[in-house]
Amino acid sequence: MNDDVDTVSDLGERGLIERIHARIGAPPPDEVWGGDDAAVVTHETASTLLTIDSLVDGVDFDLAYSTGADVGWKVMAANASDIAAMGGRPRHAVASLTLPPDTSLVVVDGVVDGMMAAAERWPVSLVGGDISGGGEIAVTIAMTGEAERDPVLRRGARAGDALCVTGCLGGSAGGLEALRRGLKGEAIGRLKHRHLRPQARVEEGVVLAGAGATSMIDVSDGLAVDVGNLMRASGMGCDIDPDAVPIDPDLDALAEVLDPRAAAILGGEDFELLFTIGESSIGSLIAGTGIAVTRIGTVTAGERTLGGAPLQRWEEMGWEHLRDR
Amino acid sequence: MNDDVDTVSDLGERGLIERIHARIGAPPPDEVWGGDDAAVVTHETASTLLTIDSLVDGVDFDLAYSTGADVGWKVMAANASDIAAMGGRPRHAVASLTLPPDTSLVVVDGVVDGMMAAAERWPVSLVGGDISGGGEIAVTIAMTGEAERDPVLRRGARAGDALCVTGCLGGSAGGLEALRRGLKGEAIGRLKHRHLRPQARVEEGVVLAGAGATSMIDVSDGLAVDVGNLMRASGMGCDIDPDAVPIDPDLDALAEVLDPRAAAILGGEDFELLFTIGESSIGSLIAGTGIAVTRIGTVTAGERTLGGAPLQRWEEMGWEHLRDR
Repeated sequence: MNDDVDTVSDLGERGLIERIHARIGAPPPDEVWGGDDAAVVTHETASTLLTIDSLVDGVDFDLAYSTGADVGWKVMAANASDIAAMGGRPRHAVASLTLPPDTSLVVVDGVVDGMMAAAERWPVSLVGGDISGGGEIAVTIAMTGEAERDPVLRRGARAGDALCVTGCLGGSAGGLEALRRGLKGEAIGRLKHRHLRPQARVEEGVVLAGAGATSMIDVSDGLAVDVGNLMRASGMGCDIDPDAVPIDPDLDALAEVLDPRAAAILGGEDFELLFTIGESSIGSLIAGTGIAVTRIGTVTAGERTLGGAPLQRWEEMGWEHLRDR
Repeated sequence: MNDDVDTVSDLGERGLIERIHARIGAPPPDEVWGGDDAAVVTHETASTLLTIDSLVDGVDFDLAYSTGADVGWKVMAANASDIAAMGGRPRHAVASLTLPPDTSLVVVDGVVDGMMAAAERWPVSLVGGDISGGGEIAVTIAMTGEAERDPVLRRGARAGDALCVTGCLGGSAGGLEALRRGLKGEAIGRLKHRHLRPQARVEEGVVLAGAGATSMIDVSDGLAVDVGNLMRASGMGCDIDPDAVPIDPDLDALAEVLDPRAAAILGGEDFELLFTIGESSIGSLIAGTGIAVTRIGTVTAGERTLGGAPLQRWEEMGWEHLRDR
């Protein structure tokens, strides 16, 4: 044995599994987490939400400016956000880690720490997983969730519904730009945090489902693209007012290098919830729930437009993971 | 648009998702598959089995001698095998594909075809997924399953139980060796098929759970390692008779390059089921169920041995994905 164990290949697969398993915690008596061929989990509702999301080194994150813990947090947040966008609460997660042999155990431990911190935040139980070798680090989470009432799908928007978004947008894109340029400052620090440690809007999603949201999606690929995805799924058009889009106020600190409005309309990974809701419900929703909600437009039976121009022109500027590398 | 669309980057993420979504098929009325933030699935039992497994190019497969369809089949089979090893039946799956921009659509379509063929075989419903960019192809499946009775865990083996395995072993390792060496022939073709298109022993697992198996695991890392995993989880020892280990008869065709017994004891990815069962049940199990079962040893309260030598010596020769690359 090597006294100076510090990479994945030093520890080996079984040692690594034991190291991670020790950090997962104990399951309730009627469940089995880790250490078996599959996890055994229980559920309380008649249907289960199921999603999967991967982050890949060099594409979705860069260890030059994010830690393993940032990566672990973010992949958990991205999955929790998918569950939130259905109006559900996360329940259980399994993780698959692809780790090159020379991966530092500092990074591996960080990924697990970040996943566990995020799991505690929402909360969700990490119940098992798998480790593979590979040439690049990749972290995949599959997550189950449960909705108390019918899940809010993408396809339910109706002409006349208000089109709304939670929180404010563009912060994550601003944070990424600041990280790439090595910028510093108080507002810039908050933007970086929004990129590295995004929040899934789970409580908001549950409230919006209860308030009668007719369709919902999380803003992961950028507002323009995700409005397009939501309206295409519903077979609807929309008019969006670009001046109504809520822009992250901290983007002012980056105004010399990044147009705040463009960042809010095109930037991805804010993980806010974009949803539609009947005109009659929108007033009490904004006034009565304590959730930051902004109306940005209206669902129509016509074309999809943003500021009078075809939405598609904006979508084509958006962030497609594969086309523009 | 390019008339000669043939790589992932030509099609883009949305085009790729639509292309795959079109092949998934329609869900029952109370479920939602694909095209939303998460899939909505139903379940029939009080608990759910949950597992995840990844295959990575250059580590777990090589496109020089396997097709995309082989890869898609195998990742589905590996997950179904984990569910089978709990005595469960696969229900729903989500897939995450990591695809470099220059990945041929022939490979992508093949992966989906292979997943769908395997999904039909067991059966399991592929209900959603996710696509990421990356530097190497990786395919991850997370799968849910359901067991009619209590899942069979790894930790239930008792001293005196018979230690048994389904089918015969070493075929997958032989097939890999034959593929690497470019060997040909009828028996060798069957070995290659066993490596490229493994079978998950779902029906067998259900029968074994019903017959009273006290612990169970699938043989994915090799018999020696997986016996060790099963006995460690149960806190038990064992005596294994190497002459009783069922060797794939087609390995005779490779005897000049690979010791058949070593392949059966050390080779991975046979996906047969290794299980323990009370002495009193073993006779009727072998006689009465029509499942090919071989007793290879006995669970003890002592050391773990194979042919009188410490099992650990064999395990250290086994196939650890990360240490020996």
